[in-house]
Amino acid sequence: MKSALLSDLGTEIVIPICAVIGIVFSLVQWYLVSLVKLSPENGGYSPKNEKNNGCHDSLVEEEEGINDQNVVVRCAEIQNAISEGATSFLFTEYQYVGIFMVAFAVLIFLFLGSVEGFSTKSQPCTYNKEKMCKPALATAIFSTISFLLGAVTSVVSGFLGMKIATYANARTTLEARKGVGKAFITAFRSGAVMGFLLAANGLLVLYVTINLFKLYYGDDWEGLFEAITGYGLGGSSMALFGRVGGGIYTKAADVGADLVGKVERNIPEDDPRNPAVIADNVGDNVGDIAGMGSDLFGSYAESSCAALVVASISSFGLDHDFTSMCYPLLISSMGILVCLITTLFATDFFEIKAVKEIEPSLKNQLIISTALMTVGIAIVTWTCLPSSFTIFNFGTQKVVKNWQLFLCVAIGLWAGLIIGFVTEYYTSNAYSPVQDVADACRTGAATNVIFGLALGYKSVIIPIFAIAIAIFVSFSFAAMYGIAVAALGMLSTIATGLAIDAYGPISDNAGGIAEMAGMSHRIRERTDALDAAGNTTAAIGKGFAIGSAALVSLALFGAFVSRAAISTVDVLTPQVFIGLIVGAMLPYWFSAMTMKSVGSAALKMVEEVRRQFNTIPGLMEGLAKPDYATCVKISTDASIKEMIPPGALVMLTPLIVGIFFGVETLSGVLAGALVSGVQIAISASNTGGAWDNAKKYIEAGASEHARTLGPKGSEPHKAAVIGDTIGDPLKDTSGPSLNILIKLMAVESLVFAPFFATHGGILFKIF
Amino acid sequence: MKSALLSDLGTEIVIPICAVIGIVFSLVQWYLVSLVKLSPENGGYSPKNEKNNGCHDSLVEEEEGINDQNVVVRCAEIQNAISEGATSFLFTEYQYVGIFMVAFAVLIFLFLGSVEGFSTKSQPCTYNKEKMCKPALATAIFSTISFLLGAVTSVVSGFLGMKIATYANARTTLEARKGVGKAFITAFRSGAVMGFLLAANGLLVLYVTINLFKLYYGDDWEGLFEAITGYGLGGSSMALFGRVGGGIYTKAADVGADLVGKVERNIPEDDPRNPAVIADNVGDNVGDIAGMGSDLFGSYAESSCAALVVASISSFGLDHDFTSMCYPLLISSMGILVCLITTLFATDFFEIKAVKEIEPSLKNQLIISTALMTVGIAIVTWTCLPSSFTIFNFGTQKVVKNWQLFLCVAIGLWAGLIIGFVTEYYTSNAYSPVQDVADACRTGAATNVIFGLALGYKSVIIPIFAIAIAIFVSFSFAAMYGIAVAALGMLSTIATGLAIDAYGPISDNAGGIAEMAGMSHRIRERTDALDAAGNTTAAIGKGFAIGSAALVSLALFGAFVSRAAISTVDVLTPQVFIGLIVGAMLPYWFSAMTMKSVGSAALKMVEEVRRQFNTIPGLMEGLAKPDYATCVKISTDASIKEMIPPGALVMLTPLIVGIFFGVETLSGVLAGALVSGVQIAISASNTGGAWDNAKKYIEAGASEHARTLGPKGSEPHKAAVIGDTIGDPLKDTSGPSLNILIKLMAVESLVFAPFFATHGGILFKIF
Repeated sequence: MKSALLSDLGTEIVIPICAVIGIVFSLVQWYLVSLVKLSPENGGYSPKNEKNNGCHDSLVEEEEGINDQNVVVRCAEIQNAISEGATSFLFTEYQYVGIFMVAFAVLIFLFLGSVEGFSTKSQPCTYNKEKMCKPALATAIFSTISFLLGAVTSVVSGFLGMKIATYANARTTLEARKGVGKAFITAFRSGAVMGFLLAANGLLVLYVTINLFKLYYGDDWEGLFEAITGYGLGGSSMALFGRVGGGIYTKAADVGADLVGKVERNIPEDDPRNPAVIADNVGDNVGDIAGMGSDLFGSYAESSCAALVVASISSFGLDHDFTSMCYPLLISSMGILVCLITTLFATDFFEIKAVKEIEPSLKNQLIISTALMTVGIAIVTWTCLPSSFTIFNFGTQKVVKNWQLFLCVAIGLWAGLIIGFVTEYYTSNAYSPVQDVADACRTGAATNVIFGLALGYKSVIIPIFAIAIAIFVSFSFAAMYGIAVAALGMLSTIATGLAIDAYGPISDNAGGIAEMAGMSHRIRERTDALDAAGNTTAAIGKGFAIGSAALVSLALFGAFVSRAAISTVDVLTPQVFIGLIVGAMLPYWFSAMTMKSVGSAALKMVEEVRRQFNTIPGLMEGLAKPDYATCVKISTDASIKEMIPPGALVMLTPLIVGIFFGVETLSGVLAGALVSGVQIAISASNTGGAWDNAKKYIEAGASEHARTLGPKGSEPHKAAVIGDTIGDPLKDTSGPSLNILIKLMAVESLVFAPFFATHGGILFKIF
Repeated sequence: MKSALLSDLGTEIVIPICAVIGIVFSLVQWYLVSLVKLSPENGGYSPKNEKNNGCHDSLVEEEEGINDQNVVVRCAEIQNAISEGATSFLFTEYQYVGIFMVAFAVLIFLFLGSVEGFSTKSQPCTYNKEKMCKPALATAIFSTISFLLGAVTSVVSGFLGMKIATYANARTTLEARKGVGKAFITAFRSGAVMGFLLAANGLLVLYVTINLFKLYYGDDWEGLFEAITGYGLGGSSMALFGRVGGGIYTKAADVGADLVGKVERNIPEDDPRNPAVIADNVGDNVGDIAGMGSDLFGSYAESSCAALVVASISSFGLDHDFTSMCYPLLISSMGILVCLITTLFATDFFEIKAVKEIEPSLKNQLIISTALMTVGIAIVTWTCLPSSFTIFNFGTQKVVKNWQLFLCVAIGLWAGLIIGFVTEYYTSNAYSPVQDVADACRTGAATNVIFGLALGYKSVIIPIFAIAIAIFVSFSFAAMYGIAVAALGMLSTIATGLAIDAYGPISDNAGGIAEMAGMSHRIRERTDALDAAGNTTAAIGKGFAIGSAALVSLALFGAFVSRAAISTVDVLTPQVFIGLIVGAMLPYWFSAMTMKSVGSAALKMVEEVRRQFNTIPGLMEGLAKPDYATCVKISTDASIKEMIPPGALVMLTPLIVGIFFGVETLSGVLAGALVSGVQIAISASNTGGAWDNAKKYIEAGASEHARTLGPKGSEPHKAAVIGDTIGDPLKDTSGPSLNILIKLMAVESLVFAPFFATHGGILFKIF
């Protein structure tokens, strides 16, 4: 067993350096975005000065309206309103979530502390009974701390993402005056700010936490990394509220605005006369940006924790080989460097010159980052791992070669790419599935919905096979450690993934601002083109999120089972089977809650919007201003109120099942929720994406076939709008929230595993 | 260990007597229905003669139009057209299915024969190596025979059900002239004919087969009952094609007829001017009657086979205790007697006098049969079982008391009742869930669909808990035998269940005939009232079907695992886990296929109906007759063609997985498909039922709230029609077909288990 090439000291230096590089890079991007001035003075990087040089032959688009200072003022005003709405919502949300955070922290401390009756004496280790480990009380304290750290990091990640997005949206609009290429770069750079900040922050906080905890734990790595799992729980529980709350917010506003504006009043999307328009744009930022950011941060934190906790009881941990132990962090560090290079391909090496180049450019980001990362993984694997080592495998140690671990990470990475491509195929209107759905609009909304649902169901097939193959290979090679690093592989290019993901809502907002600021039709066309590409990338992002969630929760599930000291989860026992079937039901229960919440909130929004149209004189004529604030308040109140029941379902299920039915039934519940939730999540987000793009396909009328269905306002178009509205809660609320359901229940079970193993299963003990 | 009270000879006599009683009772019912004359002569049981006595004080409804002989002639003509269409479709279907049946029979023979290389020598038994059992070749031959018997019985059950339904529909219409009570009795009696014929036939054929096989097998009960499992496979594979083919047929016609007729041309449902109207009515008979009949027969046959195969390797089989061995058949025999008494409550003991009594009367059938059957189970248990016995439990023998087995059967029975009530709550428009959905139509089709989907998801919760508790109790008490008898308990009242189930489509058809024959508005109102109650009972029937399917397939799964000689199905092995996640995906794949099939077939139907309206002069004015036959042909061709891919998916998956990946992955696939499929099936059929009844709620306008949403043709009503149309394929094609998916894969795996255990898992053997 040869030791790794990279020394422990090297590891201690490389990881923080990569994290800092990521942070610096994101600050540079932010600075570049800030050069677009949003004040009438037009100082510094002046579009006017550049005009003479800016007209390359190939840049066929004309610049227009860039001297109109009124537009700039209006854009700044609208941006301000959106930013204020988003900030105020997030602060309200964080107040409630903060209370939960403290309460749950206390719960963690009490439950884990009680495992050994709050004793301060060292105890024999769980896996190596000959050694002495730190007391359960220490695990309780440090788990609580890491939980809080994870929660705060998640909140900060989401908040910063929202900030940069609401900083960049009006700037993207203004750049759209100069051409689609400039606007694209601004939107993409802003996305990159979020991606790199999140990836680098997540890594840095985790790294620092490990090193600080080590001061206390010393050589007791088993205890150290058990306590670190709280970090994943913290990240994911914030993500739950971010996703659900944000999802309800954004879709209540969106559906409400559309139902009255587009359907009843026949005014365009984002029309400033629509009272819900600001709430709708705020929603994009709190749901698709802050929620998505928290979600992917959660996946990242959890897969790192799952890998670390398994590694700590494998040869890495037993031999105290720090470099190998940090393999998951080193993969993430390499990911930051790879994504940095990848980003330059979009912003500096090439320039977007036409609308049709946008989607390929974003797709190339995925391909480039995956290809480069494959090399990166190889470098990390061969420099940081010994050529052979052992991995803990449910009670036994399994010998693994370094090339096998390379394959585990790489297959996760490539499975992600396949999921991305399949998602694109099923949700982009460049391919036949969405075109078929659009075609079904000919016979009305009913056939549109039937075809859309069928499309979503069908789109599950290949991703599930990709996930199954990734699981089989990585599981066979390196048991649960293999699954965890496969998840990390899929998430290693998270910075690029988030950049292209955040790009979507920023472009969406930019279009909204252009419409509200009364900018010309041509500007709106450019932002629409950015937005259409963003729809597909958003679906791809959701594909990654759910794919990685599946792998992560399996890894966490495996770690939970190990920690709960059960060696098999046999479907053929009543305890496990009822867990399995009830677990498979939970995603349905959860979706029912979130969809109904969106529906009810949207109904309230519809009433308010109708009320304003009916009671404010001159509103339809554009003579009076609507009362945006009331609509913002409706969305805020509804989402805060409605996020509690689904949140409680997810947070309480593992506790109730673990305490009353024990770890075996809980294992069944986790497995059931995982295998059932993945399917609904994928089908829901693809169905929604397909309906959205079927509508856009008819609206754009880019082909002969599309023109026979249009134009806007035709019967097929109306049917398509109905489909789009139905898809909204599916793709942006219930679907993506399911990722978190399956991950969060698994990580929560893992954190509470010591408690359940000791005190759980009360009901079965009584009978 | 005391022996049973009932002697073996007694058992040999009791079972066939009960079956014969059932058959005689159904023939009596048929005779009573036939007394309603469908010829202008009005001989025999003449409504005219009865008119003077028929006007009781309480019977407030007036009789009308009963002397109009033209109406009778028209009704007879229409009935004839429907009957011919249904017969011709079923014959076409059976031709294709017949080819499949022969091919699959050959496959069974070859696969099972090859287990021991077609050797004719006796071999050591699988479970008791000291004894000699019949050769695998015998199992191959007898499995093939019982497969064919099961298939033929299933086909005959479906066909006879269709025959009586198409015989009764016009008679129900004619009776509706005399009042809702008479019409109800005719429709219900016809349903009972089907229910009793099916239950009694299924029992009799199974009983005779066992006795004939015993002539060869003698004391080798292990081999005998292994061969009998083919009966379940035969029944279920026919049910697959019946459900899928019939489901596509009926919904293609229904959706196509509605989209043009109701939405575009604004003519009422079942208007004779609509070219697809005959196809629509034929569809009810081939889908909801013949398909449903085959489905429930399959469940019944499979749960009996699963119980028998487990019993044969338990103390019943080892001690050759014939009466105890026949416990499943005795439960079914008792069920026939109980249902017979129950039926009299609806048809003879009480009389329906007003519309509002219909639904309670049907609901009482469920309650009465369940209450009586509980006593019946107790009688059978204490007379036919020893007080204590052992049950095979994955390699060990588990001691079971007779009262424990009583609880297993009873909990299955009562879980069925709970599922029935929950289904009623979520699909009847007497309760708030459906009213909320109707209310959501105010803001259009989109919110209607969002609320409807959420309702379906929510309706899964309690049924799953009921199933989980039933599984836990029966599993804990008596392992897989417990599960199998719990399923039998749920199905013990199958005759009553089928009667109220078949009542629905018969009433639906009766309404159609009334409309087509140009009968008065009041008659149509009466048949509508019958039909509305039928919608809810249809949903309840589907609830039973899926609940029993869940239990049955678990029992079959357990029997498969025992037979395949694996002792645990550990989720924490890569083989099982990938099976689980891929299995959970299969219901989505299957639903995608069936929904898309309905969508495409409906589009073709729409084109044809539009073509006829546009090209046949005078059609809209009622001056010319439409070309019904072409529409019937479109539905027939589409359903025959489209049933093959989903059929192949279900039939080939166990074979491919078993052969290439082996029994462990196959176990995972079965468990995954079961826990995921149950959820989709329940939510799909309840969502569809709720939309249908939300529409009917608005149309009927029975409450203040309903009237604010109506009348027919209002915007909310249009939105409700869209929801109803979307629900059609969900509730009548993809949802109910999923029952068969999960059952059929399990029984197929069981039948092929000896082959898979010997030759399966090629891929894993190679690598």
